[in-house]
Amino acid sequence: MTTADRLVESTRELLWERGYVGTSPKAIQRRAGVGQGSMYHHFAGKAELALAAVRATAEDMRAKADAQLSAPGTAYERISAYLLRERDVLRGCPIGRLTQDPDVVSDPGLRQPLDETFAWLRGRLAEVLAEGRARGELAEDLDVTTTAATLVAVLQGGYVLARSAESVEPFQHAVRGVLGLLAAQRRDVSDEERA
Amino acid sequence: MTTADRLVESTRELLWERGYVGTSPKAIQRRAGVGQGSMYHHFAGKAELALAAVRATAEDMRAKADAQLSAPGTAYERISAYLLRERDVLRGCPIGRLTQDPDVVSDPGLRQPLDETFAWLRGRLAEVLAEGRARGELAEDLDVTTTAATLVAVLQGGYVLARSAESVEPFQHAVRGVLGLLAAQRRDVSDEERA
Repeated sequence: MTTADRLVESTRELLWERGYVGTSPKAIQRRAGVGQGSMYHHFAGKAELALAAVRATAEDMRAKADAQLSAPGTAYERISAYLLRERDVLRGCPIGRLTQDPDVVSDPGLRQPLDETFAWLRGRLAEVLAEGRARGELAEDLDVTTTAATLVAVLQGGYVLARSAESVEPFQHAVRGVLGLLAAQRRDVSDEERA
Repeated sequence: MTTADRLVESTRELLWERGYVGTSPKAIQRRAGVGQGSMYHHFAGKAELALAAVRATAEDMRAKADAQLSAPGTAYERISAYLLRERDVLRGCPIGRLTQDPDVVSDPGLRQPLDETFAWLRGRLAEVLAEGRARGELAEDLDVTTTAATLVAVLQGGYVLARSAESVEPFQHAVRGVLGLLAAQRRDVSDEERA
């Protein structure tokens, strides 16, 4: 790993553990085992390092989500698999947590990759739901745009509840709850036959 | 307002704006217009002040939610009114935001009022849903415990999405989405007559 990569990796870890306000340039240097001069040779400062770190985390998150959402199966099956996949729930979402950081949201450059990631995720979920609706798997009148926002919010809010309880249980309940509501939107061949 | 009250009020504001890690004792003193000696006369330090601040915020939140959830109307109407009430969305939830603060969740005393508030809210929403189900307003097989967790998560996650987008739109979409899914669980007299 190059020095620059080590610095970005250390920043990713620290942002996840401590947030942006709680992460000092000194702590990044210590974690990366890199001197101050070397850090400033590669990056203008904490903001530039954080931007590289956030972009790398966002890219990972997107690739993982897309792999599950683009897998074979019905819309409901793919969305279930995505919502139920194993997560480090008590650490929170590495992207979502940063939105609570006042110095991140007030910096348009740092906020942008967070916004893009969530916008992409909402869009991708809306596409999967629309596919399911078009194939007759989901109710004709399901509002795919708002439902997609609900699904992303349940994950993000589930992290918040889990951290406050120091337990994964509220996260799991929130996910099971929304999947129960979504399950009631399923329409299958037997329903059509009945109609 | 007494000096102690002024200190607690200032701490509440700063925690909401800057989080716990981002709030220094100095900043609290400045905001309250209170000297260091006077602050330490009233409170042992930042942790004790934050605890008083969080308890006051949690009490407010609970009182407001309970007023709406205990109002007349069907379960769906009361839950809609609660989810759709006016909120300072872009500032985030004063309770939820603190769960992202590493020094808050690692302090059992500070985490406790957050956990209690969300546990209470989930419990209260589950009661309202159970009432609706018992009165035949909502589907018999609706899982009230997990659905209640979903509703709280949608609000908390909605704040996260709104802050990342610097727009209330994703919050509003998430809320409308879950209300759409919950609306499909309504059963009314005309349904019973049809059956």
